Amino acid sequence: MQNTVLLEKLQEIAGKKRVSTSTADLYCYSCDASQIRGMPDFVIRPDTTEQVSEIVKLAYDNDISITARGAGTGLAGGAVPVEGGIVLDMSAMNHLVEMDLDNLQVVVEPGIVQEKLNAELEPYGFFFPPDPGSSAMCTLGGLIANNGSGMRSVKYGTTRNYVLGLEVVLADGTIINTGSKTMKSVAGYSLTDLFVGSEGTLGIITRATLKVRALPQERSVLLASFEDPELAGKAVVKVLSSGIIPSACEILDSNIIQAINAYDPHIGIPEVGAILLFEVDGTENSVHEGIEMIEQVCKSLAIDIKTAANKEERDEIWAARRLVGAAVSRLDPLRTRVYVGEDIGVPIKEIPQMLHKVREISDEFDLPIMTYGHIGDGNLHTGMCIDVLEDGDWEKLNSAADKIHHTAIRMGGTVTAEHGVGGARSEYLELELGNALDVMMTIKKALDPKGILNPGKMGV
Amino acid sequence: MQNTVLLEKLQEIAGKKRVSTSTADLYCYSCDASQIRGMPDFVIRPDTTEQVSEIVKLAYDNDISITARGAGTGLAGGAVPVEGGIVLDMSAMNHLVEMDLDNLQVVVEPGIVQEKLNAELEPYGFFFPPDPGSSAMCTLGGLIANNGSGMRSVKYGTTRNYVLGLEVVLADGTIINTGSKTMKSVAGYSLTDLFVGSEGTLGIITRATLKVRALPQERSVLLASFEDPELAGKAVVKVLSSGIIPSACEILDSNIIQAINAYDPHIGIPEVGAILLFEVDGTENSVHEGIEMIEQVCKSLAIDIKTAANKEERDEIWAARRLVGAAVSRLDPLRTRVYVGEDIGVPIKEIPQMLHKVREISDEFDLPIMTYGHIGDGNLHTGMCIDVLEDGDWEKLNSAADKIHHTAIRMGGTVTAEHGVGGARSEYLELELGNALDVMMTIKKALDPKGILNPGKMGV
Repeated sequence: MQNTVLLEKLQEIAGKKRVSTSTADLYCYSCDASQIRGMPDFVIRPDTTEQVSEIVKLAYDNDISITARGAGTGLAGGAVPVEGGIVLDMSAMNHLVEMDLDNLQVVVEPGIVQEKLNAELEPYGFFFPPDPGSSAMCTLGGLIANNGSGMRSVKYGTTRNYVLGLEVVLADGTIINTGSKTMKSVAGYSLTDLFVGSEGTLGIITRATLKVRALPQERSVLLASFEDPELAGKAVVKVLSSGIIPSACEILDSNIIQAINAYDPHIGIPEVGAILLFEVDGTENSVHEGIEMIEQVCKSLAIDIKTAANKEERDEIWAARRLVGAAVSRLDPLRTRVYVGEDIGVPIKEIPQMLHKVREISDEFDLPIMTYGHIGDGNLHTGMCIDVLEDGDWEKLNSAADKIHHTAIRMGGTVTAEHGVGGARSEYLELELGNALDVMMTIKKALDPKGILNPGKMGV
Repeated sequence: MQNTVLLEKLQEIAGKKRVSTSTADLYCYSCDASQIRGMPDFVIRPDTTEQVSEIVKLAYDNDISITARGAGTGLAGGAVPVEGGIVLDMSAMNHLVEMDLDNLQVVVEPGIVQEKLNAELEPYGFFFPPDPGSSAMCTLGGLIANNGSGMRSVKYGTTRNYVLGLEVVLADGTIINTGSKTMKSVAGYSLTDLFVGSEGTLGIITRATLKVRALPQERSVLLASFEDPELAGKAVVKVLSSGIIPSACEILDSNIIQAINAYDPHIGIPEVGAILLFEVDGTENSVHEGIEMIEQVCKSLAIDIKTAANKEERDEIWAARRLVGAAVSRLDPLRTRVYVGEDIGVPIKEIPQMLHKVREISDEFDLPIMTYGHIGDGNLHTGMCIDVLEDGDWEKLNSAADKIHHTAIRMGGTVTAEHGVGGARSEYLELELGNALDVMMTIKKALDPKGILNPGKMGV
């Protein structure tokens, strides 16, 4: 079918104003927050499941690639149409379909921005726990397709743990519903779990039933300073195995600390080897108790421990953590942070060793690497900054990232703990998954025999 | 291949004493705790993954059905070889391969009995939370294959939430490893979640990496009596949405209460419309606080609330709950409990309505139905007792079960919340899952093209 005929068909399905082929529009949809690029041929912003189904069917009948996109905040190219074709911009499907709080659940369309859902839930005393750094922008559909998580996952788990059911449009346009409105069901294979984290390569998510939780009454934070990251790692292992479950457990390495202090000298974080930031939430009493227990456990390992005495002090401590993203680029004004090799995960007790290796790699390539992340999950973000106009720097960046990835895999870890595989990490899947990748390919082939759904992603 | 030749080959793989074709042995493997029956042709008790792989490959090459079995405690026929062939008794693969407690995980073979794992973990202050009623007998492999759960799932989730990775033998004998030793990974489709709960229809689990948790310091219970189940249901909704997460939230209906009192008059449970049993675990303070909060929330709805003042009173209250299984059959000595239609799940707020419907069905068929279960998850067990020598009673039983299943599905619920589909509930999957069942079949066909893995189960 010719592109002009196809355009007409797409306009028939979704309405003229919902379809674009203008170069400016296409360019806007050719990237996300990663280094991956790919120009689409059409951009469509459907507003019903039926439209999505018809569009996918048309793509299927004509062997056209189709890539779903939420807010484009992805860091691995998951929403980038690397083989062209159609981009389905899901942002118009942004209705909160049902608030079913007696059943501790909501039904949502995929285009809702994460924070907006939480704003809707707050007056009722509920929240949706997954909280990626991009929560002010990212959509629930993207979060589900990537199984996103964030700082709270050490206590609350990942998005997967909150998806009770999905409405999904399959490669041939068929609409299915997975899961159940019940809290537990073992009726059939867990298709919900298969689609969560499949990055749009098996189907397009058009609706989701999500579990929500009651908002904690109280939260408090503790900041512990350590001579070196190894001691910080030991403290984390001790805290977690003592039965305390913090609602966040973050690490900042010495490079990040310097960067934050350079960015805003008023923050004044102690310039030590590593800092751990613990948050505890719950009832007033349990928060008080949790913070005390963490203090006890960390005492023998830390140089200094600071507990937030009130909300102001708590916000102050968190402010430092929130600055990380912005601060990373400030260590050297000539350098820019480039998101490559940023999302490794290792078994908890390997964290000190991994931090040590990252420093070695930083030295080897003479590349500043700032490490921070969700240490309670073993998830480390290694922010690397280069002079983007220097070709040599790009080479160093990619070599360092490659070494970081290989090191994580050798330690029994993963190349991506929460950002996704997308087009950025496909090459590592064989090494990390072994012949389980063949099973992924078998499933992909069975559910998307023409390979039209988000091709060129996840190694399938 | 002739059966005699096959027997020789199997003996070559696993050793003579690990293979049996004696009628007595085969008979022992022809059933589980359900009504499903099927005689195998061979029983093999392998003790290595390599043996399992070779056996499966032999079965694959010769189109022989192969059904894995743990302890045979299943209530849906999942381990029964309804199409004959080989039963793989996994109970000899019962080694605790690795205690990796700094990483909050253990590596196990599938034949370990659930309670034995917890006995090994206890001295170190850890436990593996899923706790089905059969925990003293059931194996971890069976628990994983069925995604079992039990009383604690309202707080701790199901087995799925504790499986980090699996070693699986596929239909053609290929050995794969899924998942990761990290707490979070999004590298690839969640094959782990696909195999968990697939009841041996997609592969044979030969090893698992399981998350464990620190044992709570303290636990306590509260027993609340209600005039009718509807009020009890309301109390549950109120408690859960107030942010309290009990470690158990069980209901006993008036029939069950009578049965327990008839079984042991010393227990002396108040003969009311319904009883809720809440357990809270955690630190001493948080347990105290949780119990107090539940008391506050239930006060306006309950007739009476009793809190365990000490360990003895706690054990006394739990004793009543533990008697349920034995007591169900004591309401009428001529009747026997038959496990049919026992495992429905409904959205939490539908529980009162479901309990009402169960009573109506009980009246309609003149069949005593005793309802108890994990009301915090919406999971109700409806224990039915019949005179097994009366043909008419069997008909009534099946009709009542059918009506219970249809009612649960109509309410947005499930025919099985934790026991599994097996051969007992396949017929309902199309109604419950709709065309998502086709996706299950597509996956089954792709991963087990000859249909040799546990055929006749899960509707695939």
